[in-house]
Amino acid sequence: MKQKRFFLSESEIPTQWYNIQADMINKPMPLKNPATGEPMKPEDLYPIFAKECCHQELDMEHRWIDIPEKVREMYTYYRSTPLVRAYGLEEALGTPCHIYFKNESVSPVGSHKLNSAIAQAYYCKQEGITNVTTETGAGQWGTALSYAAKAFGLEAAVYQVKISYEQKPYRRNMMQVFGAQVTPSPSMSTRAGKDILTATPNHQGSLGTAISEAVELARTTPNCKYTLGSVMSHVSLHQTIIGLEAEKQFELAGEYPDEVIACFGGGSNFAGISFPFMRHYYDGTHKDTRYIAVEPASCPKLTKGKFMYDNGDEAGYTPLLPMYTLGHKFAPANIHAGGLRFHGAGVIVSQLLKDGLMEAMDVDQIETFQAGMLFAQCEGIVPAPESCHAIAATIRRAKECAEKGEKKVLLFNLTGHGLMDMTAYNQFLSGNLVNYAMSSEEVEENLKKQNML
Amino acid sequence: MKQKRFFLSESEIPTQWYNIQADMINKPMPLKNPATGEPMKPEDLYPIFAKECCHQELDMEHRWIDIPEKVREMYTYYRSTPLVRAYGLEEALGTPCHIYFKNESVSPVGSHKLNSAIAQAYYCKQEGITNVTTETGAGQWGTALSYAAKAFGLEAAVYQVKISYEQKPYRRNMMQVFGAQVTPSPSMSTRAGKDILTATPNHQGSLGTAISEAVELARTTPNCKYTLGSVMSHVSLHQTIIGLEAEKQFELAGEYPDEVIACFGGGSNFAGISFPFMRHYYDGTHKDTRYIAVEPASCPKLTKGKFMYDNGDEAGYTPLLPMYTLGHKFAPANIHAGGLRFHGAGVIVSQLLKDGLMEAMDVDQIETFQAGMLFAQCEGIVPAPESCHAIAATIRRAKECAEKGEKKVLLFNLTGHGLMDMTAYNQFLSGNLVNYAMSSEEVEENLKKQNML
Repeated sequence: MKQKRFFLSESEIPTQWYNIQADMINKPMPLKNPATGEPMKPEDLYPIFAKECCHQELDMEHRWIDIPEKVREMYTYYRSTPLVRAYGLEEALGTPCHIYFKNESVSPVGSHKLNSAIAQAYYCKQEGITNVTTETGAGQWGTALSYAAKAFGLEAAVYQVKISYEQKPYRRNMMQVFGAQVTPSPSMSTRAGKDILTATPNHQGSLGTAISEAVELARTTPNCKYTLGSVMSHVSLHQTIIGLEAEKQFELAGEYPDEVIACFGGGSNFAGISFPFMRHYYDGTHKDTRYIAVEPASCPKLTKGKFMYDNGDEAGYTPLLPMYTLGHKFAPANIHAGGLRFHGAGVIVSQLLKDGLMEAMDVDQIETFQAGMLFAQCEGIVPAPESCHAIAATIRRAKECAEKGEKKVLLFNLTGHGLMDMTAYNQFLSGNLVNYAMSSEEVEENLKKQNML
Repeated sequence: MKQKRFFLSESEIPTQWYNIQADMINKPMPLKNPATGEPMKPEDLYPIFAKECCHQELDMEHRWIDIPEKVREMYTYYRSTPLVRAYGLEEALGTPCHIYFKNESVSPVGSHKLNSAIAQAYYCKQEGITNVTTETGAGQWGTALSYAAKAFGLEAAVYQVKISYEQKPYRRNMMQVFGAQVTPSPSMSTRAGKDILTATPNHQGSLGTAISEAVELARTTPNCKYTLGSVMSHVSLHQTIIGLEAEKQFELAGEYPDEVIACFGGGSNFAGISFPFMRHYYDGTHKDTRYIAVEPASCPKLTKGKFMYDNGDEAGYTPLLPMYTLGHKFAPANIHAGGLRFHGAGVIVSQLLKDGLMEAMDVDQIETFQAGMLFAQCEGIVPAPESCHAIAATIRRAKECAEKGEKKVLLFNLTGHGLMDMTAYNQFLSGNLVNYAMSSEEVEENLKKQNML
């Protein structure tokens, strides 16, 4: 019988994360203080993040960072996640390609987000912090942080984008089951929230408003730190556990991926699955592997955005990041892949894309759900709308290879399941889903409106 | 580092199911034809179920039944499921017991139901059947059957209890993603449905109405068979994969369970996890293992019901089963554990309970959700309301052992996750959940009302 899933034993789970910054030839440009424009040192980030995360963020030297024993112990609650051969999907596509996916949806909270939430909560605990805070949109990150905080005995306060708070009560309830305090943002609990609500009564919230509130809470509360689910380089670092496991699992399968494909929001899952393989570009053993980041056509920062210094949030509280961006006041269309509705990209990925070490592709909403439906019917797993982007790109590549008679090994990251996104599937099934592709001209026009060009 | 999860390689997944009927000293009493009262032979069941299932149902001879190669191949999509040591829960309880759970929630459809859905769909396909039908309440079984049917190229028609169809749209959507036709029951699509709706306009449906409609569809449609998710002995047979895996996994852990605990609706998950261990009662190697079935205090057929011949459905279409029952017209309270709202019990379990080879315990709704909350916070997995019953009983036992200083090895079955039951958790969190315990007097009175006593 053909082997379907590949696991590692607990002793084989990697003991270190891979820090690609040590290998990069062109290092990411420095983060800048939004007030002074000065390059930031780790200490400058202390008021916001756990100290260890601040050092990891700017570490250009150490290729390998030890995973703390306690973090590894928590990883065993769900890791290794399986590397799965998608025989069902291959057969349906009639492709000569071998398709594999790394199934991060088996995490107890349903997505890869837990990999970094555990690490961030651990470092906060180590530092004597008692409270953590964050923002969340659809709720994948908020759920992960809520559970990780509970596991380490921290109190968690999550600001959830108000419209998601109301539209997705299941995610909110899940955070509450894990003991978190969940507040719809904008709220009257912060200065930022009050200002926004005064200026715009009945504001429905955005990641921008929620970040501002969470950062303010962290800054004004003793023993409280802010945590983030993507974009930052230390988050990408924690996510490399995905690719490091996958590499070992491919050895068990006796194969090696020709193409690594992942959806792209802020970059953490893309980084997590691809950076460990990219190190073999640097060491010269695998120079030809392709890395494909897949973004929504409605939020095309990698394919159509500009590389420049920009804020990570609407209010301009965060450091200035050198990245591909659509402008920090860009309001993405209301697609179901909430985790991909972010205007910018992590600084490492931005540099890699600029240097031509990876590629980007954009896919429209309807194609992603067609891909998700096919995947569900072939493999049994209902994928998250975000993951559907990676699946759609994989299907495109598998079909192209079939036409050319190329037999490639394709790997994509299944970041999460879509069990809390069934309303999106229902819209698709009833024919009510729409596309929101942006042209290069529209992107440019929008940047001008924001005075970014 | 302490090992958390135990897996089997794909080659170690059992190749046979265990048929406890071959070992039972007192065999189950025969099923009877509801019209004639005559004992039923396999052929008498052909009009309803796949032929192979009819033979398995009444097989008292063969201890081991081969799992077809194609079924085993589909099992590798999610099996082995992990046997997990609940270190987090143990610590929270301060118990000397070792607590393990078999995590069936990792199945793509979120519950153990898939183990039998795959087998039933396979046997239908083998027989040349093109269409399958079934009923579902909350939707766990309907989802499993929908996916299994799709995997084998069968069309599936699911009658879902109307109130669940409307209250739990996510489950319905999931069945539709897998390509099933989902109809709220009672409907105008069958004679039975029309009769019910004519007699009781706006009837909100029950498992009784849905079973009647599905059975009628199977009987009146060419090449269509009915499938069932619990109660029947062939379903229990397919579920023994759970316990057979667990036994091998306990070898890896170097332990053996003193007590096996499972929630109880119709009996399939209880049978699945406990029968393989019970065979060591028959072979004399483990005479003292305890087997505890946990039912809702609002539907206490095992602890307070009567052993007698009764129908499996309200309309009286099904064979007469010798079982513990609350009467086939009993209407259970509207608890969230929809999978446990059934008036009867499988015939094998009923005989085993009568013979004192197993025990039953009932737990009230609020205690089950308290248990589920604690489990979620300790182990990261939000359990299904049904599974919360097994967790509550395990916690009771772990605390009792702690008081007595007894160090037992406890095993419970985590049948499914509760990600589609978050409204239930929300009710608990907001203090709106209620208990519905029935006394023995109430049960007796209710049986009299049904003319069953």
